[in-house]
Amino acid sequence: MERMRLVVPEMRELLEARQVEDVKDIIAGFEPVEVAEVFEHFNEVEQLSLLKDLDPPTAAKIFEELHIDEQMRLISGLEHRRAAGVLNEMSPDDRADLFEDLPEELGSRFLALMKQPEAADVRELMQYPSNTAGGLMTTKYASALEETTVGEAMKNLRERARKLEVIYYLYVEDRAGRLVGVVSLKQLVLSAPERRLSDIMKSNPVYLKLEMHQEEAAKEVAKYDFVAMPVVDELGRLRGIVTVDDVVDVIETEATEDMHKMASMQVVDEAYLRVGFLSLARKRIVWLVALLFIETLSGKVLQVYSGAIEAVVALAYFIPLLTGTGGNAGAQTSTMIVRGLATGEISIRDGTRVISREILMGLFLGLILGTFAFARAYWGEGNLALGLTLGTSVIAVVTMATLAGSLLPIFFRLLRRDPAVMAGPFITTLVDVVSLIIYLEIARRLLF
Amino acid sequence: MERMRLVVPEMRELLEARQVEDVKDIIAGFEPVEVAEVFEHFNEVEQLSLLKDLDPPTAAKIFEELHIDEQMRLISGLEHRRAAGVLNEMSPDDRADLFEDLPEELGSRFLALMKQPEAADVRELMQYPSNTAGGLMTTKYASALEETTVGEAMKNLRERARKLEVIYYLYVEDRAGRLVGVVSLKQLVLSAPERRLSDIMKSNPVYLKLEMHQEEAAKEVAKYDFVAMPVVDELGRLRGIVTVDDVVDVIETEATEDMHKMASMQVVDEAYLRVGFLSLARKRIVWLVALLFIETLSGKVLQVYSGAIEAVVALAYFIPLLTGTGGNAGAQTSTMIVRGLATGEISIRDGTRVISREILMGLFLGLILGTFAFARAYWGEGNLALGLTLGTSVIAVVTMATLAGSLLPIFFRLLRRDPAVMAGPFITTLVDVVSLIIYLEIARRLLF
Repeated sequence: MERMRLVVPEMRELLEARQVEDVKDIIAGFEPVEVAEVFEHFNEVEQLSLLKDLDPPTAAKIFEELHIDEQMRLISGLEHRRAAGVLNEMSPDDRADLFEDLPEELGSRFLALMKQPEAADVRELMQYPSNTAGGLMTTKYASALEETTVGEAMKNLRERARKLEVIYYLYVEDRAGRLVGVVSLKQLVLSAPERRLSDIMKSNPVYLKLEMHQEEAAKEVAKYDFVAMPVVDELGRLRGIVTVDDVVDVIETEATEDMHKMASMQVVDEAYLRVGFLSLARKRIVWLVALLFIETLSGKVLQVYSGAIEAVVALAYFIPLLTGTGGNAGAQTSTMIVRGLATGEISIRDGTRVISREILMGLFLGLILGTFAFARAYWGEGNLALGLTLGTSVIAVVTMATLAGSLLPIFFRLLRRDPAVMAGPFITTLVDVVSLIIYLEIARRLLF
Repeated sequence: MERMRLVVPEMRELLEARQVEDVKDIIAGFEPVEVAEVFEHFNEVEQLSLLKDLDPPTAAKIFEELHIDEQMRLISGLEHRRAAGVLNEMSPDDRADLFEDLPEELGSRFLALMKQPEAADVRELMQYPSNTAGGLMTTKYASALEETTVGEAMKNLRERARKLEVIYYLYVEDRAGRLVGVVSLKQLVLSAPERRLSDIMKSNPVYLKLEMHQEEAAKEVAKYDFVAMPVVDELGRLRGIVTVDDVVDVIETEATEDMHKMASMQVVDEAYLRVGFLSLARKRIVWLVALLFIETLSGKVLQVYSGAIEAVVALAYFIPLLTGTGGNAGAQTSTMIVRGLATGEISIRDGTRVISREILMGLFLGLILGTFAFARAYWGEGNLALGLTLGTSVIAVVTMATLAGSLLPIFFRLLRRDPAVMAGPFITTLVDVVSLIIYLEIARRLLF
């Protein structure tokens, strides 16, 4: 629901009349993401004047909810010093993402104008690849030494609170900066002020590693149901936290990426309407051409058996039915297996169990589908041998397809490659070629 | 990472020796979900004795992380009074899910043994369909009247804190129970004790509605990046909260469901290895049979044009290449569009833009693919007319496929049906039939 759209005309009038305080009042009644949602209804002059008029923390909160392309456009339009002010206040993780996309020269200029600690923060976070826990984490977290008392910790938190925006956990470190425990804000509030953190903390805390892939990191956060999880370096020192809102985005993105791969195309990592025509075409054409070449093999197969087809042209009538049915069964299996491997429902250890189950499933489904196919060919063409050929072929092809649809993703996972490409059109195309060999070989034996 | 697996043998020995305190110490060092993960390594006697020996709150936290089938098995194995003790301590949302699956008689017996408020809570939550915000929400939230002072609110929170487990926000109600504002725990900690909640609260708060579909509710929570969002009834009264950890599960589940639908099968809502063979077969066969019947149409098309195929058998060689290529392009488009509609990247308003873009894309991809196909047919068969027939057909078929792949999902969304079924095998099968008509019609004109 876009609650804010109704007030856009009013805001525009107020902006024009330079009644800045009234604009601020309106904005204060909504969430930053809502303001960002209606941002496109303003023209660039209005957008820039909004960002300039608001205090930097509020401007930053709205700004970081915009699409990165918008961020790039607006930050370049702002006066540099003003831009640095907004950048100072942004969430460290969103800010690092923006700097990664900024032209280097502009980035350095902003860094020079930003506050020292914030600029250093950007430089640190930019070291980590964006698809790792390090790339996902923010550095705005609360930490304290284990010997700190609850009272001191609360006092420090109060002082730092305005910077921290959200506080769910206080992470406890030893003198070497190693993560040794975690205390929830609730526990802190409930504990006597004179107790030490080491007494009330949960020791042996779970953590993520800097270099962990973001998908794995997201799975860990989701598994533990934590609102945030600490990230440590190879020496066990606390370097940042990954918050659950970023995890939600990762889970969505990873599912989208898997779907694209499962449709035999390269991952489109931008919104459909934002990605350029040629860039989208390039992501699609590579696989399409590769699959077209695989499909030429089916032409070769048909050529080899052309004698049979010339003798019984009706054989050709059932080619789409046969290859289609096999492909459909293979698509079902591969989709379930790829998804199961992605969510962790299926692991490599289940491999043989999964594959043998799918072979059985293929036989069972094939038997039902083969019966329909037999009936269609027998009654349709009045040819028993043709009916039997088709029926048997359907059973064999569906079984082959469920085998391929389960074996190939599991095999790819074993090789530590992404199983997602072993699905959809790729499986369907493979099945096409093999189906024809099975079909025409069975025909040769039964019909001639 | 299953950190806990190493201590399982030790725990088993301790359980056998009835050294309950030592077992408790071990468990205290881990997260409940970790204990739940290793639960399967114990036999039923050990599992039951663990649940009995632990204090009910700890037992409940581990218990609610188990799969619902395990929960059913164990809760029936526990002495009823003990079971009620664990149920009293469970999270309201997980507890309601369990009661929904329990045999009615057993459920009523537990309800009779449970504490009054907890039993009432189960009855209330069970009213809401499980795929709505009401079905997703928990009733363990903190609320206060708007005239309450910060000091009073903090005192109340401290008293209730042990029950509440997590506190991120304090929801503010008026005397009629209507949600009027929200205060974060951080704000509360930072505000002067004598201030009233109505002065420090964020008024006009965002909320979910009880009857909202869980997918929509999840999207809202994800959009606002909140850790929890309040759920209100039709009178605006606060009834519960949806927490982000449940949202993460919903997002995962909805993506899996979409993938299953996109593979033309009914949604398998259990883990692949848990769902029964026949139940899985049933979810797959319906679509497979339906698609097989659609594919019989392609046989009819070929029959109509059998004269052409008999005259130029080479026409048949390229059928799999043509239908396959069209199907692949259609699968790519439909996957992107269905996913875009699901994440909200694409909306109905973008409909004509998306469809015209895909027609253009189809022409462009078709041109490239058609050139390859032409080359293959011309040089492979030494027949220019055949080459032109195939080339032109590929262009037409790919364009038709991208049109179908974009038009049908958008049309289904317009009809308020799930676009996900308009993808994968369904599109491929439709494309098969139409491709053949296009191909053989072009052949008739160019070849004869």
